Amino acid sequence: MIVNDYPSRLLEQAVEAFNTLPGIGRRTALRLALHMLRQPEGAVRNFADSISKFREEVKYCRICHNISDTEICEICSDQRRDRSTLCVVQSVQDVMAIENTQQYRGLYHVLGGIISPMDGIGPGDLTIEQLVERVATGEVKEVIMALSSTTDGETTRFFIGRKLENFDVKLTTIASGISVGEELEYTDEITLARSILNRINLN
Amino acid sequence: MIVNDYPSRLLEQAVEAFNTLPGIGRRTALRLALHMLRQPEGAVRNFADSISKFREEVKYCRICHNISDTEICEICSDQRRDRSTLCVVQSVQDVMAIENTQQYRGLYHVLGGIISPMDGIGPGDLTIEQLVERVATGEVKEVIMALSSTTDGETTRFFIGRKLENFDVKLTTIASGISVGEELEYTDEITLARSILNRINLN
Repeated sequence: MIVNDYPSRLLEQAVEAFNTLPGIGRRTALRLALHMLRQPEGAVRNFADSISKFREEVKYCRICHNISDTEICEICSDQRRDRSTLCVVQSVQDVMAIENTQQYRGLYHVLGGIISPMDGIGPGDLTIEQLVERVATGEVKEVIMALSSTTDGETTRFFIGRKLENFDVKLTTIASGISVGEELEYTDEITLARSILNRINLN
Repeated sequence: MIVNDYPSRLLEQAVEAFNTLPGIGRRTALRLALHMLRQPEGAVRNFADSISKFREEVKYCRICHNISDTEICEICSDQRRDRSTLCVVQSVQDVMAIENTQQYRGLYHVLGGIISPMDGIGPGDLTIEQLVERVATGEVKEVIMALSSTTDGETTRFFIGRKLENFDVKLTTIASGISVGEELEYTDEITLARSILNRINLN
């Protein structure tokens, strides 16, 4: 059913606003707009203010380029972290996911995206030059590339590898293989092949 | 995976804002907040303004209680519409859905909800008294109840029926039965039973 004849221009504008969000269609957008009517005015103003304030005042860490409220983020300024290891990730979500594992104590480098010819994102749109500068200081001993296991991830990994080939730094990438808890028979064959190639010595 | 340790308070507040929306979990909220960073500042300000403006300036038609930018909505002020027929609906979405059918030329009455003891919504929270006043003017010849085919819809229909029983007005409800295009064998038995009870004479 086509829902497009709004009884109010204000309603239509609110629906259009929600409709700009990824994954939110016009029907859901209408439901969200009407949800706002059932909230107190102050709550709706807070909602709107939080979002525009975030967009207007967002800052990025001068060192790792992660989102940060301070010029240097909490992780980069934490002296207990291992400054010789850099983990290269695509986005803030990836930093949060790795931090949640509580297994990594080095620093990060947030690329701000991934090389993607399809989406028109080239190396110049990412913080790759800044990564090279960090490595050039000589403090970094290992760069772990924690990028998605996709063609774009592969391209980005390859490009960064070439940029860093003349530095005395160990380059690693996160392992790919069977998920923990996953049944072997349901693992796709490319993943399974890679998990055999990258088998780990147990003795 | 638990994602709750945000690298920035501003980011956290934006995520919390999106997380207040129905059907938006924390992970989607984070994705929406980061989406905002890729939009121009002006677009994000427009997004926020459209929503708070809608909440602050929303008006309801004085006659049918639908959302409207004017004191009397376009439908109620349209002299070509049949003023003797009222269609009682729960919400603005229902008005839009019925208008989209292009089959109804009467007026509406928007209840603003449905009687729902589970959600603590009683008759006093709806515009039922205003409906009775409209019927009491004598201009209305038929009240069509276009409410959901649920227990709450049934309760509301029954309550309104009682309120209007002393008026000289025809009370009808929309038909329930097999959906157009639906196969008989997949129709649930209550709907099928009702479609037989309310069978339509063809000769």
